[in-house]
Amino acid sequence: MKERLYFDTIILGGGPAGFSAGIYASRGAVSTAIIDTSMFGGQPSNYLELENYPGFLKIGGYDLAEKFEQHADMFKVKKFPMQEIENVDLVAKTISTKEFDFEGKTIIIATGASPMKLGVEGEKEFVGRGVSYCAVCDGSFYKDKVVAVVGGGNSAIEEAMYLTKFAKKVYVIHRRNELRADKIIQERAFKNEKIKFVFDTVVEKIVGEALVNSVITKNVKTSEIGILNVDGVFPYIGIKPNTEMFCTQLKQDEKGFIVTDTTMQTSLEGVYAVGDVRNTPLRQVITATADGAVAAVYAVKYIEEKSHSREKI
Amino acid sequence: MKERLYFDTIILGGGPAGFSAGIYASRGAVSTAIIDTSMFGGQPSNYLELENYPGFLKIGGYDLAEKFEQHADMFKVKKFPMQEIENVDLVAKTISTKEFDFEGKTIIIATGASPMKLGVEGEKEFVGRGVSYCAVCDGSFYKDKVVAVVGGGNSAIEEAMYLTKFAKKVYVIHRRNELRADKIIQERAFKNEKIKFVFDTVVEKIVGEALVNSVITKNVKTSEIGILNVDGVFPYIGIKPNTEMFCTQLKQDEKGFIVTDTTMQTSLEGVYAVGDVRNTPLRQVITATADGAVAAVYAVKYIEEKSHSREKI
Repeated sequence: MKERLYFDTIILGGGPAGFSAGIYASRGAVSTAIIDTSMFGGQPSNYLELENYPGFLKIGGYDLAEKFEQHADMFKVKKFPMQEIENVDLVAKTISTKEFDFEGKTIIIATGASPMKLGVEGEKEFVGRGVSYCAVCDGSFYKDKVVAVVGGGNSAIEEAMYLTKFAKKVYVIHRRNELRADKIIQERAFKNEKIKFVFDTVVEKIVGEALVNSVITKNVKTSEIGILNVDGVFPYIGIKPNTEMFCTQLKQDEKGFIVTDTTMQTSLEGVYAVGDVRNTPLRQVITATADGAVAAVYAVKYIEEKSHSREKI
Repeated sequence: MKERLYFDTIILGGGPAGFSAGIYASRGAVSTAIIDTSMFGGQPSNYLELENYPGFLKIGGYDLAEKFEQHADMFKVKKFPMQEIENVDLVAKTISTKEFDFEGKTIIIATGASPMKLGVEGEKEFVGRGVSYCAVCDGSFYKDKVVAVVGGGNSAIEEAMYLTKFAKKVYVIHRRNELRADKIIQERAFKNEKIKFVFDTVVEKIVGEALVNSVITKNVKTSEIGILNVDGVFPYIGIKPNTEMFCTQLKQDEKGFIVTDTTMQTSLEGVYAVGDVRNTPLRQVITATADGAVAAVYAVKYIEEKSHSREKI
């Protein structure tokens, strides 16, 4: 028989949004738990360095994640990492993991978003053998090798630059003829002699034997097929929300991101969504933490109002 | 003849929201200016300590404000403190001060909000002689004295607790019979023996000679008139947006806060409002900084789109 644990607020996901929600909820004097399917930290733990979380001029991603966790510890948020989720019922506000049955008065979803796959032959097969979605995690394996980054947004270009610390050459393969990344990032990348841009081009196939050795490309304007000899491929073409556990239970936008009002409440009363998983106008650490604060403050209000109305009955 | 200065983005107000907007705009490779009518720092510079800006477990308000400014300096944001504003034209995107004529492509309003006045006899007359809106600024003048805080929200109760460091007795005068402050703050306050709560009561008049010596109160239920001998009065009854410079130019809500969409854009294209001055669901340093980031990112996009469309003409 599994132990049943009761909390006022249960937060799903231990990244910046989740920990900020934890800080604010616990400081609001409601009992608070944070559950994660893996270790805590969320996306920043994979970033080498951040320079745009106001207040910290430059900070390692892992260090910032650790500070958020310490901050939540200061307010005695209960932490449950490495939980294997078996069921989430957002209406009943229950979450079953392999170890525990959690029951909450409010739930704050902070599960984030995940990299999108190219969906080409060879991609799945070569994950961990030349295909990686995390340059910071795997970059150092490519010392003096040749790699390709696929994409043209901030992440793609930032990761390409990061990879030049290790690789001797970095292709940036992008389907359009100009980058989507911020100008300051573009400017830096154009100055980097190790980066070679391959515009108007998509990846058709990832090829290798034990390890990746090349990508087959196609020019979208001329339909010309090409081949680039590379040891690694890093797709950075976008993200999708991590909503598998509870999809169909909440209103989502056309891309699957959870729709919230300005208080971060979802289509279900007492259920909130914060950070990258919601239909936010900007996906940054600073906006995720702000979301967490807002959701927690309104969750605390919701709990107080509900307990008052119960007393009246 | 005044100097005319051109910037892509002009930010009005150098608090957390303004500096965060500065960091993000300047990092987005657009020329950025921050203008303030006084010194930089905004509201946090008046706070003794903050414990709810995620990442900094505890930090002095002034120290945090300084970090925001250093962060903006890192990205070379141009700073114009102590500007006497003569005219703001949000449609033309021009701001005239006594020293300069500024012209921008976008404007980000981050002017914050100010304490509301009680509007009773004696309040205005005794400002600086017993009436104060900033416990952190003036608390130390009330060593071993008796003071009254008016209000029941977080600020009122937090400031009341702060004042117990100096005063021998702190009355909290509140018009309702329970506090509006967060429970954790209430709990702490109820445990503080120096604080005496005066519920269901309003201030009718502030009385004194050279300095304040008492307040006349009225019980809102019994209409009974009372008198409390106090040396200081700290009204903490709410805030109003600082929009005097440009009211009537933008859509505002019933309380005067500027209405924005999710990208922080106001009813005028290319004009954004961030932080306490807008109709935000939560007024915290963390939400203000997030607002600034969002506005700046969309301002940069707006500038890029506009310059593209100009090229096409």
